[in-house]
Amino acid sequence: MTTETHARRELEFWFEFASTYSYLSVMRIEPLAASRGVTVVHRPFLLGPIFREAGWSTSPFLVYPQKGAYMWRDMERQCKKFGLSWRQPTGFPRNSLLPMRVATLGVDQPWISDFCKAIMLENFTQDADIGAEACVAAVLERLGLPAAQILDAARFESTKLALRSRTDLARSRGVFGAPTFFVGDEMFWGNDRLEDAIELADAR
Amino acid sequence: MTTETHARRELEFWFEFASTYSYLSVMRIEPLAASRGVTVVHRPFLLGPIFREAGWSTSPFLVYPQKGAYMWRDMERQCKKFGLSWRQPTGFPRNSLLPMRVATLGVDQPWISDFCKAIMLENFTQDADIGAEACVAAVLERLGLPAAQILDAARFESTKLALRSRTDLARSRGVFGAPTFFVGDEMFWGNDRLEDAIELADAR
Repeated sequence: MTTETHARRELEFWFEFASTYSYLSVMRIEPLAASRGVTVVHRPFLLGPIFREAGWSTSPFLVYPQKGAYMWRDMERQCKKFGLSWRQPTGFPRNSLLPMRVATLGVDQPWISDFCKAIMLENFTQDADIGAEACVAAVLERLGLPAAQILDAARFESTKLALRSRTDLARSRGVFGAPTFFVGDEMFWGNDRLEDAIELADAR
Repeated sequence: MTTETHARRELEFWFEFASTYSYLSVMRIEPLAASRGVTVVHRPFLLGPIFREAGWSTSPFLVYPQKGAYMWRDMERQCKKFGLSWRQPTGFPRNSLLPMRVATLGVDQPWISDFCKAIMLENFTQDADIGAEACVAAVLERLGLPAAQILDAARFESTKLALRSRTDLARSRGVFGAPTFFVGDEMFWGNDRLEDAIELADAR
């Protein structure tokens, strides 16, 4: 019974380091969830294959330039609203494969949340190339973690497979963008629905 | 000076009767704006030509079925959250041309807001065919308006031209969906940004 109750108060957080709106949720989710006693379960997945399935070779914000132009302005305003730093990256969407693999390794580790925030800050406030090994290594070192060892493990076939498999699962559950939240089978799309998702998790 | 101040406290509301998220804003906008002393300026426009420009022959919710499936569930939850009635229409997107032309005629009239709400309720709570003359006529009559006369004028070349022209203006201003709000040149997309748009209008 205890296990079941616990499972129901979990919020699944599906995110991508290349995704602008995932940045907002990565920075906001922990205190919001903690204030309701809801546990965040990290679900890193790749947007690329999801977008390709929709027929897009890149981010929809590049495929539809008017939507892209709006998104940059909206991000600026949203960051101001939430008190977050912001600097529009000169590269978008950034290749996020390496840090996504590290996050895949780290989902059960105590450092997952700090790692996600640090990578997002590199991408969206430092204009850093988060796909580069030097960037990811520096982040891991700053967190006091064994960078070389983790980067090695990030390239294990099992890690690649786990990320690919989670991306397949996203697709099969109807995920079409990031961030996406699940409370049980109830899906919420977008940082704008974070509060609603937490409220549902809290009510369970 | 007074005129300028007045103009700056206006919120432009760009909407479409076929649009699900426009329903939420049509029902919510008046009391929210009034509570801040902000004037709502109605800007009915057609989504069809905007979507065609993006390469879609119909609503993106049909083009991308996973997004569509999510939208129906989201609308159900959003309506519950805002205390609005909701019934998923059996036809989507409904042909909205006739009521959109009536709204184009009515933008400066005292009945515009009531007309918009009544048409939206027909579409999203009564499952009515809002493109049918009988439906629009019944709505106008219930509002105590000269239905036959308004429906005649809705088909004037000048009315058609005004709607087409406003749709062109939407495109040139970067509008890519509905609802969209403008405060001066600042654009906000989606019912989720209604409060932010009103706050900006209020701050001016």
